Amino acid sequence: MSHLTPPERGLISAMMSSPPMQSVYSDQALIDAMLRFEAALARAQADCGMVPPACADLIEAITQRIVIDRASLAVAAPAAGNLAIPLIKQLTLGVRAESAEAARFVHFGATSQDVIDSAAMLQAKNGLSLLAQDLAAINASLATIARDEAKTAMAGRTWLQHAVPVTLGLKAAGWLDALVTVHARLLATASGLPLQFGGAAGTLASLGEKGDEVTDALAGRLGLARPRLPWHGSRLPIVDIGAVLALVAGTLGKIARDVSLMMQNEVAELSEPHAPGKGGSSTMAHKRNPVGCALALTAAQRAPQLLASLYAGLVGEHERSLGSWQAEWSTLPELFLLASGSTHAMRSVLAGLEIDRVQMTRNLNLDDGLSMAEAATFALARRLDRDRAQDIVATAIARSRAGGQSLLHALRSDTEVVAAFDDDELVRLMEPSGYLGSSAAMIARVLARYQANPSSRSDDGVH
Amino acid sequence: MSHLTPPERGLISAMMSSPPMQSVYSDQALIDAMLRFEAALARAQADCGMVPPACADLIEAITQRIVIDRASLAVAAPAAGNLAIPLIKQLTLGVRAESAEAARFVHFGATSQDVIDSAAMLQAKNGLSLLAQDLAAINASLATIARDEAKTAMAGRTWLQHAVPVTLGLKAAGWLDALVTVHARLLATASGLPLQFGGAAGTLASLGEKGDEVTDALAGRLGLARPRLPWHGSRLPIVDIGAVLALVAGTLGKIARDVSLMMQNEVAELSEPHAPGKGGSSTMAHKRNPVGCALALTAAQRAPQLLASLYAGLVGEHERSLGSWQAEWSTLPELFLLASGSTHAMRSVLAGLEIDRVQMTRNLNLDDGLSMAEAATFALARRLDRDRAQDIVATAIARSRAGGQSLLHALRSDTEVVAAFDDDELVRLMEPSGYLGSSAAMIARVLARYQANPSSRSDDGVH
Amino acid sequence: MSHLTPPERGLISAMMSSPPMQSVYSDQALIDAMLRFEAALARAQADCGMVPPACADLIEAITQRIVIDRASLAVAAPAAGNLAIPLIKQLTLGVRAESAEAARFVHFGATSQDVIDSAAMLQAKNGLSLLAQDLAAINASLATIARDEAKTAMAGRTWLQHAVPVTLGLKAAGWLDALVTVHARLLATASGLPLQFGGAAGTLASLGEKGDEVTDALAGRLGLARPRLPWHGSRLPIVDIGAVLALVAGTLGKIARDVSLMMQNEVAELSEPHAPGKGGSSTMAHKRNPVGCALALTAAQRAPQLLASLYAGLVGEHERSLGSWQAEWSTLPELFLLASGSTHAMRSVLAGLEIDRVQMTRNLNLDDGLSMAEAATFALARRLDRDRAQDIVATAIARSRAGGQSLLHALRSDTEVVAAFDDDELVRLMEPSGYLGSSAAMIARVLARYQANPSSRSDDGVH
Amino acid sequence: MSHLTPPERGLISAMMSSPPMQSVYSDQALIDAMLRFEAALARAQADCGMVPPACADLIEAITQRIVIDRASLAVAAPAAGNLAIPLIKQLTLGVRAESAEAARFVHFGATSQDVIDSAAMLQAKNGLSLLAQDLAAINASLATIARDEAKTAMAGRTWLQHAVPVTLGLKAAGWLDALVTVHARLLATASGLPLQFGGAAGTLASLGEKGDEVTDALAGRLGLARPRLPWHGSRLPIVDIGAVLALVAGTLGKIARDVSLMMQNEVAELSEPHAPGKGGSSTMAHKRNPVGCALALTAAQRAPQLLASLYAGLVGEHERSLGSWQAEWSTLPELFLLASGSTHAMRSVLAGLEIDRVQMTRNLNLDDGLSMAEAATFALARRLDRDRAQDIVATAIARSRAGGQSLLHALRSDTEVVAAFDDDELVRLMEPSGYLGSSAAMIARVLARYQANPSSRSDDGVH
Repeated sequence: MSHLTPPERGLISAMMSSPPMQSVYSDQALIDAMLRFEAALARAQADCGMVPPACADLIEAITQRIVIDRASLAVAAPAAGNLAIPLIKQLTLGVRAESAEAARFVHFGATSQDVIDSAAMLQAKNGLSLLAQDLAAINASLATIARDEAKTAMAGRTWLQHAVPVTLGLKAAGWLDALVTVHARLLATASGLPLQFGGAAGTLASLGEKGDEVTDALAGRLGLARPRLPWHGSRLPIVDIGAVLALVAGTLGKIARDVSLMMQNEVAELSEPHAPGKGGSSTMAHKRNPVGCALALTAAQRAPQLLASLYAGLVGEHERSLGSWQAEWSTLPELFLLASGSTHAMRSVLAGLEIDRVQMTRNLNLDDGLSMAEAATFALARRLDRDRAQDIVATAIARSRAGGQSLLHALRSDTEVVAAFDDDELVRLMEPSGYLGSSAAMIARVLARYQANPSSRSDDGVH
Repeated sequence: MSHLTPPERGLISAMMSSPPMQSVYSDQALIDAMLRFEAALARAQADCGMVPPACADLIEAITQRIVIDRASLAVAAPAAGNLAIPLIKQLTLGVRAESAEAARFVHFGATSQDVIDSAAMLQAKNGLSLLAQDLAAINASLATIARDEAKTAMAGRTWLQHAVPVTLGLKAAGWLDALVTVHARLLATASGLPLQFGGAAGTLASLGEKGDEVTDALAGRLGLARPRLPWHGSRLPIVDIGAVLALVAGTLGKIARDVSLMMQNEVAELSEPHAPGKGGSSTMAHKRNPVGCALALTAAQRAPQLLASLYAGLVGEHERSLGSWQAEWSTLPELFLLASGSTHAMRSVLAGLEIDRVQMTRNLNLDDGLSMAEAATFALARRLDRDRAQDIVATAIARSRAGGQSLLHALRSDTEVVAAFDDDELVRLMEPSGYLGSSAAMIARVLARYQANPSSRSDDGVH
Repeated sequence: MSHLTPPERGLISAMMSSPPMQSVYSDQALIDAMLRFEAALARAQADCGMVPPACADLIEAITQRIVIDRASLAVAAPAAGNLAIPLIKQLTLGVRAESAEAARFVHFGATSQDVIDSAAMLQAKNGLSLLAQDLAAINASLATIARDEAKTAMAGRTWLQHAVPVTLGLKAAGWLDALVTVHARLLATASGLPLQFGGAAGTLASLGEKGDEVTDALAGRLGLARPRLPWHGSRLPIVDIGAVLALVAGTLGKIARDVSLMMQNEVAELSEPHAPGKGGSSTMAHKRNPVGCALALTAAQRAPQLLASLYAGLVGEHERSLGSWQAEWSTLPELFLLASGSTHAMRSVLAGLEIDRVQMTRNLNLDDGLSMAEAATFALARRLDRDRAQDIVATAIARSRAGGQSLLHALRSDTEVVAAFDDDELVRLMEPSGYLGSSAAMIARVLARYQANPSSRSDDGVH
Repeated sequence: MSHLTPPERGLISAMMSSPPMQSVYSDQALIDAMLRFEAALARAQADCGMVPPACADLIEAITQRIVIDRASLAVAAPAAGNLAIPLIKQLTLGVRAESAEAARFVHFGATSQDVIDSAAMLQAKNGLSLLAQDLAAINASLATIARDEAKTAMAGRTWLQHAVPVTLGLKAAGWLDALVTVHARLLATASGLPLQFGGAAGTLASLGEKGDEVTDALAGRLGLARPRLPWHGSRLPIVDIGAVLALVAGTLGKIARDVSLMMQNEVAELSEPHAPGKGGSSTMAHKRNPVGCALALTAAQRAPQLLASLYAGLVGEHERSLGSWQAEWSTLPELFLLASGSTHAMRSVLAGLEIDRVQMTRNLNLDDGLSMAEAATFALARRLDRDRAQDIVATAIARSRAGGQSLLHALRSDTEVVAAFDDDELVRLMEPSGYLGSSAAMIARVLARYQANPSSRSDDGVH
């Protein structure tokens, strides 16, 4: 490899993505995917009688052993406008060294975009498969939490303020339900990734009468879906991949947001699993930063904008766009890398999540029972007039706030309340565990769906 | 209506959206949708024995005849933090004026987000339905073009430069295929819009044991899907709607880009249908601006970013977010309005598209046949050596460029060519109509899929 | 006004923007600004001898009293492609009713974009002025907090975890310093808003030799800057306005993020000022939602994407773009409205911010003094070996975490520490107020800059 | 270097960025910048008497010769949460190998963000300097075109349709004027890049009384501006850099859009300079793709969204954010790389731009003089009634369109016209060169500003 190889720039990316995804999106993997397309093309054309089988054999053999000079690629690509042209030049030279005849059939009838887009699909297939594995593991962790903590009452929080009680299980069920949907979509996307094959402007004219037949054979050989027509200028398949990646990032980002908020020192209900050297500081010995959540939040912050770039690319010009297509080349890999950083990090965060149930109870009772104000109002309203109930509770809240006494205590000093409820009833009524509504049924529904089909397409119902 | 009503700001929006969509997203329609939720809630709770039927009757009756004071809403909403609280206050007053008992059951057990999100779904249902109608009409126009112009050869263009010939029918088939997919997704999204119902923090605790039963009844009454659990803090349903709107905008934007490029004076292959006063200028009497395409391009430029805002909202805090949820309130309507402007405009652009086939031929021949260079190379390669063929064509191109002679003429002066091909063959070989490859089959596949199911879910196949 | 007026859609916008900004961006204000341009144009052309003064007088008079039919505008604009053409038609009819001669000079030599862009600048000037007033008030509040709370120690928080102590004054100084910069830029932007005037394609050919002279006069009359050449196709001035609005939203969003985090029930250090009915819930009587911060966060969430739309518009085609320019028409007003909602809300949040210093101290001591770990390490390192100091502190932290004892207590049980420090020293060393470093000097620098020039351009220094 | 080094991923980036910018943002350059900070910190602390000069000497010496193990960094960084912690660990080990005493002063009192942010500023300084050189060269090319082609009439185009004539010089002047402003801002930004230095939470408590003094010395040594206070949680400096990069990309993208449109085969007015192998196709021998413009358009498509990510990061939490800061790490380098690809490409496109003046004239006359319709109207109106003039021209246009005759010819058949104008006048009147208005003055103003200060801050006037 020559000294002209572009300087390495992998450190930041390595921090924010999983090692296997870095391999899927390495230069070598990109080159390999392009070569795999060229080999399959020759073979498919041999299947259809367009290329002598021996030539196809040789082309395939060379693709498997050629060492591409990355530095030359890097130098030639800007003027060529893409990586395919110089790559095919190297490949053709390699083949020609052994057979001038075979060299004539390299990349036969294809256009650069055919190999570049198809290679992107092959890489995406690998990338989506990695993400699916992480998501399956995350969902398993979430299902466990949803089931085990179904009755663990904690403060529900709306507008970043205590509302009424929820349970940790319900929270996890909400996370899980969204992620099961996203997982199913990811698998559906992975299974429909389309071959790109259209020749110079999408007509396959270069193949004469054989265009359709070669397309079928090529799609089969590459394990890609067979499109009705080339999509050189119609970038829905790219947007679809990007959209599912952004959903992965956004859905995990929501979990990371919640976990990191519950990990604040004053809240202290959850914690990322601790490990030596994890989340430390160069000077503050006590630090345990939520570094896993940080990665998920980083991905979630960048993904919407990266996706927007892909959406903007829908408006490309004619049969192959100027600028939009090229903008995909770095955007889609970046999305994959960030998404992998997120799944990788959250997989370990959720597998080892530390739960402090005592602290959850303490926080729930923090404001002297104010988060049971709604429960009190509804209970009182069942025996008293509804308006009266609201007045009584409002007064009790005011008294509680002023005097630091609990809501229960404040209600006890209301004669109407005391007349209508005995003290046991009042105490029970202020018990968060008695005010969880349909939580259990909700969790059960989510778990049932998850268990029915934890890792395959199940994108039915509401999403 | 009081003089405090916020000043009107509809002119720009009116220009960029369809009149029916403006009605779907009018203040009145928003209020109506919220009132419809409240009526259905009371009825559903009556179904479940929680509310006396007479009270539900009265609540429903009042929702149908109450005149909400928009000005008061506008004044009260900022401090309340949402529109639901002051609206419910007005509704409750209205009900109470006739029955204090019924007033107790207004909005019973629900939270503001239940009514706001569910109303958004009801509006979205109407909005998607409008877009579906426009898309069906657009697809019909595109199918006609794809079929009728299947053999109309024109310049294929890649990187904004002539490539090899395509046909106008193939171009339209590409547009159509993407739009059929988008249409199918839009219908699938419309049919799965979920009810929002969770009470204060998503547990439905306020309904005691009746949460699930009321939810079923309420979803049924509103014609919305029944979610497994509330989605106050999990905004996938919102993102899904936004995503399909952005696909509508992007896919139509691509058509508008292509049409407007082909409408440039120097290209002059297509034209928006002309009408008096359409696309004129305040001073230039000759102007016929592509104002329909402009609307579609405007929507396509804004949609990716608006969608990114919704995606960013996935990362909301806990059971109801601070800022992200609120950001949806104006973003989603804006997307609907822009999408409607695009479908509305492109529906009429494509229904009356003016096609200049003579000019297409002229442009195809513009560079003295250079866009047949690939055809020549492949044809020569079939009889001569491939490398030799490339050399001959390259030389002929250079000669053609230097001397202004046609590629055909230049080839004729090559002795090897003349030896291998008789002149009729050479002339035929330079004929664009003979170099269209699998175009016809591609168009047929797209039309077959479209005709199989022109207006319902048919999101099979590749994407 | 006819019944065809587009349906009103102001409620959501009214919630998220200030009433005066709604007036600046009302339909009427837009029409008025366009009419003001037409009046000034006639007058400027009269100044230059191109238009008879009496005609200019009449045109100006009519612009001041004409009642534009919004409904007709709304109907005509989509086909015309912009609002200017039908508006000028109405104006011309109005003038012609009094003088056919004067009617000939309406909009003389100008293009639609001249009036639309210039009107946008006139509106922007008013909009920026409103924001500047709010920012000045906010900065005054922040300066007060920075000064008064310069010594109020509280937990510094990094990665959402306690770090070392800071002061509330330092936090406010950080907010203030950014906002003073933003304020200065806003004023600079407001003072340089350029006139748009170029005629059909930017040459002012329609004015013959008088183009430059009329431009000077027109800029003077409108109080707009005089550009070197028209910017029909060069949208820097629009991006510049959008950028400053996004900075307003982002900078206030940061304050809102911090305030709302400190307002969480478990943190409880700050609170938005409370008012009856503010931030309540339809069912939860105890709720005090940070509705002001929510507005600022909403604006901050949407602004980056809206700005991205404007940036994307830089790449418009030729002398007037197709789609990009039109996308500005709703984007820029939306940014102004959202920014005004943010400044309006945060102005009152910060003017009445409730500060709980006791709670700040409590939180600072929450983890038994762990946030003084760095202080301890540095202090120990000054007398012991640095590595030794780190070991001792790490051990003390571990002991503190395991046993619930304070860091001070844990240090006291280390013989080396006790040998090196007497107990008074140790106690003092754990005192947050003694570990505030250069906070006071930092605050002083920020206040000095602010006081030097609190409301005018002072964009010196670092950024 | 170990085999664990992250796999290389530089090929796509290499295609889209300039080689020198790839060096500025290489892993090695990042490490070097961080080491430079650590060296300067030790020296600054020695200046202030906090560190023994010999220790500072040694630290500096080690930073200059240490070979950092990238693979170990890559492995350690994810758990640490940033690159600084493992880097400083390696550095400290390196120093300790020679002096345990000196090792104690490595990174003394600083936090990870101090070194990371300051290193980012040092890299940005280099990056901005590279861009400034390219911009200076581009502006020189544009100034030449503006001057030389000041009278080269061509079709002005609005809404992608012919409007009235402009000149190529005016077009170039418009490009230049925007770019001169952007260049000036870039230089201003480069000159104000701030040091980051605040210690754990921004108070510099770790430095005791010396915080301010060390900050001064450190800023001086690094050649960075001295901020009033640390900006760990206030990301304006990052947004400012991103904003100027997005302006570079957008402004050049506009030029690339225009050039590529004028390079379409049917327009053929401009062409990127041709070179062997440049913009070719793998199969189409005649292809000359605008690969330079493609790069600029790619950058312009991605930059707004990347900038939006930075703007979103303004809303970070407290003294150091969770996710937002981390999102900058890859976003800002990506923007620099893309911007460099754009400046690099457009520098050579514009230096060698091929201009076809004959084709410009041909296009201007394409529609039989219709783009002189406005000129005709104004000229006729000067002798006839304005309304009459409009009618005559409208009729002439209709006749011209129907019959393929020129506008001049059509006007000649109007008796009123013939009565009022002799034929020479009519012919002259249809001459584009006579209808260029203030173009020359506009160009002169732009050139005067450029020449006054071609490469330094000159951000006066309107921008």
